[in-house]
Amino acid sequence: MGESFRKTSEEKVLRDPVHRYIHISYEVIWNLLNARWFQRLHRIRQLGGAFVVYPTACHTRFSHSIGVYEITRRMVSEIPEIRDSLNEREKITVMAAALLHDVGHAPYSHAFERILNLSHEDYTCRIIEEDEEIRSILEAASPGLAEDTADVIRHRSRNPLLSRLISGQLDADRMDYLLRDAYFTGTTYGEFDMERIFRTMRVINAMPVIKESGIYAVENYVMARYHSYWQVYYHPGARSYETMLFSLFKRLRNLHEKNAAPSVIPEFLPLLEGRELSLPEYFALDECTCSYAFMKLQSCGDPIASDLAERLLNRKLFDYMDASQENIAHVRACLSQSGFDPDYYLTEDDVMQSVYVPYTGEKDNAVWIRVHGGEIRELSDSSFIVSSLVRGKPLKDKRIYFPKEIRSLL
Amino acid sequence: MGESFRKTSEEKVLRDPVHRYIHISYEVIWNLLNARWFQRLHRIRQLGGAFVVYPTACHTRFSHSIGVYEITRRMVSEIPEIRDSLNEREKITVMAAALLHDVGHAPYSHAFERILNLSHEDYTCRIIEEDEEIRSILEAASPGLAEDTADVIRHRSRNPLLSRLISGQLDADRMDYLLRDAYFTGTTYGEFDMERIFRTMRVINAMPVIKESGIYAVENYVMARYHSYWQVYYHPGARSYETMLFSLFKRLRNLHEKNAAPSVIPEFLPLLEGRELSLPEYFALDECTCSYAFMKLQSCGDPIASDLAERLLNRKLFDYMDASQENIAHVRACLSQSGFDPDYYLTEDDVMQSVYVPYTGEKDNAVWIRVHGGEIRELSDSSFIVSSLVRGKPLKDKRIYFPKEIRSLL
Amino acid sequence: MGESFRKTSEEKVLRDPVHRYIHISYEVIWNLLNARWFQRLHRIRQLGGAFVVYPTACHTRFSHSIGVYEITRRMVSEIPEIRDSLNEREKITVMAAALLHDVGHAPYSHAFERILNLSHEDYTCRIIEEDEEIRSILEAASPGLAEDTADVIRHRSRNPLLSRLISGQLDADRMDYLLRDAYFTGTTYGEFDMERIFRTMRVINAMPVIKESGIYAVENYVMARYHSYWQVYYHPGARSYETMLFSLFKRLRNLHEKNAAPSVIPEFLPLLEGRELSLPEYFALDECTCSYAFMKLQSCGDPIASDLAERLLNRKLFDYMDASQENIAHVRACLSQSGFDPDYYLTEDDVMQSVYVPYTGEKDNAVWIRVHGGEIRELSDSSFIVSSLVRGKPLKDKRIYFPKEIRSLL
Amino acid sequence: MGESFRKTSEEKVLRDPVHRYIHISYEVIWNLLNARWFQRLHRIRQLGGAFVVYPTACHTRFSHSIGVYEITRRMVSEIPEIRDSLNEREKITVMAAALLHDVGHAPYSHAFERILNLSHEDYTCRIIEEDEEIRSILEAASPGLAEDTADVIRHRSRNPLLSRLISGQLDADRMDYLLRDAYFTGTTYGEFDMERIFRTMRVINAMPVIKESGIYAVENYVMARYHSYWQVYYHPGARSYETMLFSLFKRLRNLHEKNAAPSVIPEFLPLLEGRELSLPEYFALDECTCSYAFMKLQSCGDPIASDLAERLLNRKLFDYMDASQENIAHVRACLSQSGFDPDYYLTEDDVMQSVYVPYTGEKDNAVWIRVHGGEIRELSDSSFIVSSLVRGKPLKDKRIYFPKEIRSLL
Repeated sequence: MGESFRKTSEEKVLRDPVHRYIHISYEVIWNLLNARWFQRLHRIRQLGGAFVVYPTACHTRFSHSIGVYEITRRMVSEIPEIRDSLNEREKITVMAAALLHDVGHAPYSHAFERILNLSHEDYTCRIIEEDEEIRSILEAASPGLAEDTADVIRHRSRNPLLSRLISGQLDADRMDYLLRDAYFTGTTYGEFDMERIFRTMRVINAMPVIKESGIYAVENYVMARYHSYWQVYYHPGARSYETMLFSLFKRLRNLHEKNAAPSVIPEFLPLLEGRELSLPEYFALDECTCSYAFMKLQSCGDPIASDLAERLLNRKLFDYMDASQENIAHVRACLSQSGFDPDYYLTEDDVMQSVYVPYTGEKDNAVWIRVHGGEIRELSDSSFIVSSLVRGKPLKDKRIYFPKEIRSLL
Repeated sequence: MGESFRKTSEEKVLRDPVHRYIHISYEVIWNLLNARWFQRLHRIRQLGGAFVVYPTACHTRFSHSIGVYEITRRMVSEIPEIRDSLNEREKITVMAAALLHDVGHAPYSHAFERILNLSHEDYTCRIIEEDEEIRSILEAASPGLAEDTADVIRHRSRNPLLSRLISGQLDADRMDYLLRDAYFTGTTYGEFDMERIFRTMRVINAMPVIKESGIYAVENYVMARYHSYWQVYYHPGARSYETMLFSLFKRLRNLHEKNAAPSVIPEFLPLLEGRELSLPEYFALDECTCSYAFMKLQSCGDPIASDLAERLLNRKLFDYMDASQENIAHVRACLSQSGFDPDYYLTEDDVMQSVYVPYTGEKDNAVWIRVHGGEIRELSDSSFIVSSLVRGKPLKDKRIYFPKEIRSLL
Repeated sequence: MGESFRKTSEEKVLRDPVHRYIHISYEVIWNLLNARWFQRLHRIRQLGGAFVVYPTACHTRFSHSIGVYEITRRMVSEIPEIRDSLNEREKITVMAAALLHDVGHAPYSHAFERILNLSHEDYTCRIIEEDEEIRSILEAASPGLAEDTADVIRHRSRNPLLSRLISGQLDADRMDYLLRDAYFTGTTYGEFDMERIFRTMRVINAMPVIKESGIYAVENYVMARYHSYWQVYYHPGARSYETMLFSLFKRLRNLHEKNAAPSVIPEFLPLLEGRELSLPEYFALDECTCSYAFMKLQSCGDPIASDLAERLLNRKLFDYMDASQENIAHVRACLSQSGFDPDYYLTEDDVMQSVYVPYTGEKDNAVWIRVHGGEIRELSDSSFIVSSLVRGKPLKDKRIYFPKEIRSLL
Repeated sequence: MGESFRKTSEEKVLRDPVHRYIHISYEVIWNLLNARWFQRLHRIRQLGGAFVVYPTACHTRFSHSIGVYEITRRMVSEIPEIRDSLNEREKITVMAAALLHDVGHAPYSHAFERILNLSHEDYTCRIIEEDEEIRSILEAASPGLAEDTADVIRHRSRNPLLSRLISGQLDADRMDYLLRDAYFTGTTYGEFDMERIFRTMRVINAMPVIKESGIYAVENYVMARYHSYWQVYYHPGARSYETMLFSLFKRLRNLHEKNAAPSVIPEFLPLLEGRELSLPEYFALDECTCSYAFMKLQSCGDPIASDLAERLLNRKLFDYMDASQENIAHVRACLSQSGFDPDYYLTEDDVMQSVYVPYTGEKDNAVWIRVHGGEIRELSDSSFIVSSLVRGKPLKDKRIYFPKEIRSLL
């Protein structure tokens, strides 16, 4: 590997409260960061509608992405067994993949993916391989780098370690978002000791494993993940916002099918048509675009679309209760009685989480521990805490949502 | 004061990483927080364009406003001499004023005020007194409360202590933004010991004064302010962004005068006409609206407007140098040579800061210290640090900005 | 309860990094803090020999005691259902009990209790009721207060809530030591969200219960406890130090029985005689006294006592392995072969911890949760996490310790 | 440069809340840390009597010393211009000097140095060059290393950079104690951005200089130093404790001269005789020894020695006032009237601090800044803040101390 990648004239350093500084010394990374698809991530918040519950949760996919890059950069330069097992090109590849892993992310977290029926990973790979700017930055650094970077993201890398560093069970992506979401929401549940995990990480057969002396830190990480899911990601207020978003688009599509769609900004048209979006169409759909559209929709002719848009903008969240058959029937009746169309005003949401899913054949989906003596065991075979927890059933929460206005009727 | 204000059924609590929790127990406060003008603050970032320098600086005026409210709430309930000198209605008034003090804020920090030639304090008072929703929430709580709240903001309150708590030299507004901006940028320069200031705050003749034992904390606060200004608010990158914003609007207005303005979103029209905005027109101008407009402008017919919009969206910041006559002339020449119109591509910026401005007749503009023995002295008469610093001249920085493309010619 | 307790002329405030400030406004508390038995706690470290593993773990029982007082003070003044259910005298009583709960603590954490075969709680109650200074401070504040304070500590208080606040499953004592030990060792495992626990604490039938919305914080607290035990309290290095301490005293006693005890400081005599210590004798045995004695023992005539003292002072810790019969036999053989007397150079240690012990009849030994609807359930019936964990067996670790010098023979 | 120093079999890692982890990979460093003179530092607190004011200030010279080592280790391995300008032996030398720089420290901070009329630096160098254990560890690693290490401490190193890293105006020693004392007292005044200083440190002519972009961090460091001095080191309570200590030893010496010294522990004899201490005599004088001696002195025959010892142990601090001639005369009169011998009960203390002393010929005593363009300027020539502050006169505080008992007479 005689290749050598160009360095920036001076190391670039960005402030970041989670990692203190983000260090960039390769030109290819710096150029990717300045590409317009990457700059677009300034306009996509990391947690979508969670700001309705945690007012400070306004951090963006931009800062998360550079955070994942920084963790990856530290992994490939500070953890000896990783550093020594990768050549410079592989290091660049995994750092680029870390930086770009969310470049195709839709607005409003995962809500839009459901609305659009798309996978952000697919768009991410398309952008890396097809966007003129991104592709040429990568190819200029090293021929084939665009495809190789996309391969890391789609778990088809020649060296499977690369994918595992940024997307596994104990990876740079999750580590960053747990720490970052904890910091920006002000919850402490997401904190864990990343330094300890770094210090005890080894590599065996291209798989990151943790020395037994790091097992407390891993247990903490697993618990942090568990608590963050329930406190932040599955918080009923945040889910309420997302189901309202879904209802609004459902309404717009239904109107569109009947040729009754209100006149809205042109960028929304592809959404209403329900077809696959081209990259430029997708690009235009950032959260500012959506927010502007919601503002316009408030005064569109359709009362349902207008009402839902107003609720989204002014945080008039749907209320919720358990999704029993009885509750559903009762809410449905009250809605009709109050003049709310249940097609749009009764939403359902189904969340489920296991603390940790133990090994079931796909070894990428497990955390591996090297116990004293050198044997490699799966986390739930080596941690009392985790083994106890996985014996329990996954926690579920199935809820229905509806306007607060009918609360008094229930 | 037999009046009694309605409490919420249970105390409302919002998470906030700066103050841990925001506590709301009065209905009037809770209702104000849910008003649409207040919810709009979710769409105005606290630091405007500073995210181009500090990627995590995406916190909003919403979170700042509830932070100022929380500091004020603590002042009127935890500092004995404040708590005991105010009746319930005065406490409600100052808490409402704290919450609403930025409700009329324009997008992009102070850049828009310069563009629009407006004062956000004026709009704030207009909204409080004229917006149907806000006004009626206040008046329902107590007749006259809307005007009284606006009076606190315009420093005409019957009890001058109320204004001094939220806007003076050592006030809830500044305390919150120093702590908050430090937290969300990841700089540590803005930190100081607010608890100590609280513990040593007394009231004399309706003026907050600090006991001498709190003087270190006040010195720290003054230094925090000084460092934050240079590190964050006056950072050349952030100023560069703001001058580009100014150039873009200047261009649009000039085109408009010549009836050549590109077709842009209708919400921008009042801006181009340069007239005073009505409240609904002003409301529509949040940062999402602007961002959407910039996106559209990229493909408008005018090459200058299109180019400036693209630079704003994709962080192609102007470079800068000292504003000497020589530099200005030289840059101007290079710009012309490269085909850049200096009217829009050469911008100037003038920042100046005193560490602390000592007393010059208006006692609201000073920090007062109660020294041992009971005498009241102005800060620069009681602190060695501050007295040394005020003897220096105010620091100035006058810079010009221009596209990086001409750097090689300079 | 017309009684009124004297306040200090101004509130006394002590700095503390864990709680920021300790607030004292009652004279009786301030006087207790200045009593010589309480000042003695400056000379007893909180974690005994843990400094051999965590070099910064030098914090004292003094700071822990004022921390427990501060948590208790906040409970009785900030948690509405506690504040409103106690009269002033009860509040003083529980704050005094919180402050004094460890006043009879022996040096070197719990190691000395085993050596002396004493309970520090017994000494604590004796000091409160019998020490002239402490007793008279309490009685001067209110007749009967000494006995009432001791009753809180020995769980015989008329109002059982008082005891439960400072010693239960979720009490001021544990909350302080988890936070404090985490802070001073630099481990993050002991951190949890005390503010959340405060906000969700209610009182039902004189029992503190936690609202369901606080269950995540309680789960975190339980996990913090679990991790702190294994990382700090049961750390093999710290246990090694304690077993060496035990061996040294065993040696001294055996020599004393044979009238061959080396001449050591007079304060050690009662220890060698193995009899119950009077309060003045116990008082003299702080960690400085012990350390001085170890220094002198280094040059006493007996080679075993001298060697063990030298190991304690210079951190020459015993090594350890699992306490299997085979290991014990093998180590014993190697020791004899190397000239080490196994009576003093082979020590055993047996640690065991349950994550949480569920209710088995004594309701003080459980955490109670008030679920939605108002029902009260035990923690392991309401938390998925805790219920999973209690199904596992308690974790045990049985180890033997021996000089590193024989490692090469094993 | 052929030499190669032995590494430990695995990198040793110690927890430390200030630096997270202390990393040790050289055997010579590990062996020094385990030497008995170094272990003695566990028995010398960093801030002597400051615990009477800040109850948690119990951290030791041991943890400070490993902190200074860690900062130095990072400097020689992470700051490129330092890393590249030193060979391995120089790095080992400066790390050893950093670790050992306080190995000859007396108990009770600087109070003992005044009592004993000794310099701890002299003892430090003597220990490094004369103590059998320390010397042989160093010489085994590399012949001449003991003298070279001592030379770094006494500023006679061949490469002056080595001395400047651990003792200058912006050095590892100060950086550690500011951060550490802030952490363990709970004051925030000592905090500054060490990472930024690291990132902007360069080396010019064997002198560390800071790039202009780091000037805010240096200003913060200077202010942190200033505030820490007044809040912690010069706190009247801590000084009161030290002057009482001084009085006690003065009394003992005076009694000794009259052959009337109370029978006290033998380790104190050399102190009473006022002669230079041998290393073993000095070794025995740790804070535990002193504390034990104070306990014994409480019941010695001499009422003054006994009373002063009791005051030290039980925190009965002397009160204080300004040292005007009038005050001195008045206090003296009141003391006599109350039966207190002014020779021991009237103490004086004189503290003075400049914020920063600018360059006056000895370039080691200045902080140097590399401004844009490359010129090197002294800090007070490049920082507005510092230049303002140095124009002021040094702050002085001259106080007298006396027993609180006479307060009512004053």
